[in-house]
Amino acid sequence: MADTVGKTITCKAAIAWAAGEPLSVEDVEVAPPKAHEVRIEIYHTGVCHTDAYTLSGKDPEGAFPVILGHEGAGIVESVGEGVTNVKPGDHVVALYTPECGECKFCKSGKTNLCGKIRATQGKGVMPDGTSRFTARGKPILHFMGTSTFSQYTVVADISVVAVTPRAPTDRSCLLGCGITTGYGAATVTAKVEEGSNVAVFGAGCVGLSVIQGAVKNKAGKIIVVDVNDNKEKWGKKFGATDFVNPTKLPQGVSIQEKLIEMTDGGCDYTFDCTGNVGVMRAALEACHKGWGQSIVIGVAAAGQEISTRPFQLVTGRVWKGCAFGGIKGRSQLPSLVEDYLNGQLKVDEFITHRQSLAGINTAFEQMKDGECIRCVVDTRA
Amino acid sequence: MADTVGKTITCKAAIAWAAGEPLSVEDVEVAPPKAHEVRIEIYHTGVCHTDAYTLSGKDPEGAFPVILGHEGAGIVESVGEGVTNVKPGDHVVALYTPECGECKFCKSGKTNLCGKIRATQGKGVMPDGTSRFTARGKPILHFMGTSTFSQYTVVADISVVAVTPRAPTDRSCLLGCGITTGYGAATVTAKVEEGSNVAVFGAGCVGLSVIQGAVKNKAGKIIVVDVNDNKEKWGKKFGATDFVNPTKLPQGVSIQEKLIEMTDGGCDYTFDCTGNVGVMRAALEACHKGWGQSIVIGVAAAGQEISTRPFQLVTGRVWKGCAFGGIKGRSQLPSLVEDYLNGQLKVDEFITHRQSLAGINTAFEQMKDGECIRCVVDTRA
Repeated sequence: MADTVGKTITCKAAIAWAAGEPLSVEDVEVAPPKAHEVRIEIYHTGVCHTDAYTLSGKDPEGAFPVILGHEGAGIVESVGEGVTNVKPGDHVVALYTPECGECKFCKSGKTNLCGKIRATQGKGVMPDGTSRFTARGKPILHFMGTSTFSQYTVVADISVVAVTPRAPTDRSCLLGCGITTGYGAATVTAKVEEGSNVAVFGAGCVGLSVIQGAVKNKAGKIIVVDVNDNKEKWGKKFGATDFVNPTKLPQGVSIQEKLIEMTDGGCDYTFDCTGNVGVMRAALEACHKGWGQSIVIGVAAAGQEISTRPFQLVTGRVWKGCAFGGIKGRSQLPSLVEDYLNGQLKVDEFITHRQSLAGINTAFEQMKDGECIRCVVDTRA
Repeated sequence: MADTVGKTITCKAAIAWAAGEPLSVEDVEVAPPKAHEVRIEIYHTGVCHTDAYTLSGKDPEGAFPVILGHEGAGIVESVGEGVTNVKPGDHVVALYTPECGECKFCKSGKTNLCGKIRATQGKGVMPDGTSRFTARGKPILHFMGTSTFSQYTVVADISVVAVTPRAPTDRSCLLGCGITTGYGAATVTAKVEEGSNVAVFGAGCVGLSVIQGAVKNKAGKIIVVDVNDNKEKWGKKFGATDFVNPTKLPQGVSIQEKLIEMTDGGCDYTFDCTGNVGVMRAALEACHKGWGQSIVIGVAAAGQEISTRPFQLVTGRVWKGCAFGGIKGRSQLPSLVEDYLNGQLKVDEFITHRQSLAGINTAFEQMKDGECIRCVVDTRA
């Protein structure tokens, strides 16, 4: 390991040269970490819909060329000056939602949305305004502060957390986004209460993790809503009690009406895990008058808006949302890894597909398959 | 008083015979209260925008002929069988949001929206499905379970609360809607925190009462947003620290941007007291990322919808609302009356206009005047 410290590493990465084009797996030069930066050897990375969204070109903030990927785990190769929270050899998960502990947001006690490096992260560069990636002689942008589709990446020290080495990286990587997002939405953002009725719209990785959080908090009914009937078995595997396919309701019956009927007045908590603004509305309107809360988790396409009659809010429904489940990565992720190791959090069950880095475009294709929950990419294979 | 018990009382009331027409002050027969009903001699009633909205015919649920009014106080004349919470001679405030203490809503501890008589109240009848009002030989509908534009009215026992006789009824009547709605929205629904920044859109009776609640909870900046410059002095009289007229901002600067700039990132709490759906959107978007909450209080016109980008919620803003400020009338209103008597809650300051029952149509006209906060009608004058 000492061989590479302070030197540029040339390794393989999947580069997105332009929107709408397949990723190109090729050599990239990864510069050593500067002060308060960490270079990570990525072992495994998940592939998430957000990667596909940006690759598609629909993300107005997407910039190219870029190395995508934000659900990765690996080992710290080296650290820059002033880094104290991780050291070479640590098993780590990359955090697209950093936690500096010092900014107005971190200190508020009310949100996990650290503001420290937001501006540069959004622009695809490190906090000093430059990139650590070079390919074909050109600088390549970072993505979400993580860029895990590479054998090596550099992240800010506030964007990484050490976890127990007992957790395999092909599992812990999934805690870098989807599982934590859903589980946190239920347990941290909504704080689902014992006996409460929950509806989860969309049973992908995030939705199934919402179910896990609802089960952990001893919810009553946990109703999965999905247009794919195959998701019934997936939902029940994770603890859902009911399944509704909204495309198969009797004519004239909306999904909101169906859920209100099933729960004698409406759900206590609903979760949108689809990114579809029509679904977000249905999720709000399926809430119980007086107290029902709907949590928007999915990311909508650019320019799309949510709407409802304000009467829905005046009569007590609450519309909120979260990113990364409201989880503070450095403070709270290690305990989720422990939960996994203790058998309290399902992770293995999410892995339906595996690919090598060379097969990453196939992973993107497989994600569109209703049977794919998560494809884990082994960056070293 | 004993003379009238068990008998029909003929008195004056302001009857709305049809949408869009002036109220007609004429004789109405008020039947004695049935079981679990209370007949009140109304001394004073406020006139509120909701009365005007229903009278205009724009309220799709408005039905005629009807006796409007929902902000009234007076003395209990007689009670029906089984009534235990008030007795003849009690000073009372009518409650358009009842509190039965037994239904799912009342027992939830999460809302003030009692469900016990919702269906019949919405239809303009007493819980047994009939009206207690007759005029010109025809049954006249009740309104919001209160119908305070009458010298006598009959309400369900769960729709009335006894308050100290030390509070004059021309003051306590205003706690039946506007003041309580705003004050409760700030103190009960939002639970404004010490030092937090607040924006109040619309400085009428409700908005000024939000300011009172924010002051009570020791808010930091309390910014009034109103298109009427005269409201600056009103806002400051109640404790606001700043005033913005959104129609006078530099071109290209939205009110959301202005408020975000004034509060270094956005407001912690915003309140819509206008009923305008465009304002509701601005109020949400003026909230601080990560935790800002926007509370919809105003009642929008039929069919109107609120919209925003879901990103606003995913990044931590919360959209909620309340009716009657989230205040439980029977449990919590008496202490608000005490607050008034102790000088902790301004009420006198709201009364800018006074009318007799015969002058009630003038009261409706005066409400449109920017200088009118509340017109109190003396039903016996």
